[in-house]
Amino acid sequence: MPELYVALIHFPVVNKNGEVIASAVTNLDLHDISRSARTYGVQRYYVVTPLDDQQQFVGRLVDHWVTGSGAVYNPERRKALELVCIKSSLEEVRDDIHQVSGQYPHTIVTCARHCPRSIGYDQLKKNINSGGPHLLMFGTAWGLSGDFMDQADFVLDPVVGMTDYNHLSVRSAAAIILDRLVGR
Amino acid sequence: MPELYVALIHFPVVNKNGEVIASAVTNLDLHDISRSARTYGVQRYYVVTPLDDQQQFVGRLVDHWVTGSGAVYNPERRKALELVCIKSSLEEVRDDIHQVSGQYPHTIVTCARHCPRSIGYDQLKKNINSGGPHLLMFGTAWGLSGDFMDQADFVLDPVVGMTDYNHLSVRSAAAIILDRLVGR
Repeated sequence: MPELYVALIHFPVVNKNGEVIASAVTNLDLHDISRSARTYGVQRYYVVTPLDDQQQFVGRLVDHWVTGSGAVYNPERRKALELVCIKSSLEEVRDDIHQVSGQYPHTIVTCARHCPRSIGYDQLKKNINSGGPHLLMFGTAWGLSGDFMDQADFVLDPVVGMTDYNHLSVRSAAAIILDRLVGR
Repeated sequence: MPELYVALIHFPVVNKNGEVIASAVTNLDLHDISRSARTYGVQRYYVVTPLDDQQQFVGRLVDHWVTGSGAVYNPERRKALELVCIKSSLEEVRDDIHQVSGQYPHTIVTCARHCPRSIGYDQLKKNINSGGPHLLMFGTAWGLSGDFMDQADFVLDPVVGMTDYNHLSVRSAAAIILDRLVGR
């Protein structure tokens, strides 16, 4: 099984006007992406926000489904949401993976636009299968900030469908990208 | 461009106990699946519910984004949500496609479980590319009722990831299936 980690980044991302912001956590981002992560054998799903109240919101939601009454109501949902780890920053995520894995991960950012240095799905699939931890990062709001993207090891090609429309939800993009990278 | 239609079915579906119910419409099912549908060149996205109040809810939401202030705030969202057509039953959907296309569609149901008569992605892709309208149907709640599935022309193989966990959201499953069937 490839050693793949996923992170959903709420800071630093940009708003509609290109300004750097911290976005609010969306309930269904936690459910949908954790269910996709569990389906595709992802090791951990990091929800990254520096905001205390947002971390508390995520904590309460995860507790409900992992140890609260939600775990009894729907045990399959528990198996998904127990992948969630709340972290304040990419640095904390990298340190956590280093503790689990013994190595720091290769970092990959996803983006809806084509970037000059982006790599394709076949290449990244080979990298992941050649071993070592890989961390796949998704931005919320209008996407990851430019500075944040510049610091990643790789930028993944955007998902392109049959049209030039390029506005998938992050939940759908994460599902498609996991299927392309680690689907059977 | 293949002539593909998508329908999200809210009746007849089953609940956790296997009883046939009409499910409530989920806001993000409208947004996410319409955005995926637009990305992959789907002709229309049918939201099927026989319940008046649910049809009115969908109508208000779509109006906001297609002709209301949402259309100014986010024109890309308009392009997605204008694919939505509200219908009461599969019969109404089939009649609508017949009016648009001149033919009734081949019908395909999706399911998280393996069915004896299910077909694979490569075969369905060939069918779709060989021409004629195809209608891809997704169930909400705990899935489409058995009787409803029996009436479809085809059952599509479930999405299988790297594990035996098989509980994707309908939003994620729709995204992955469209990418597999009509992705570049």
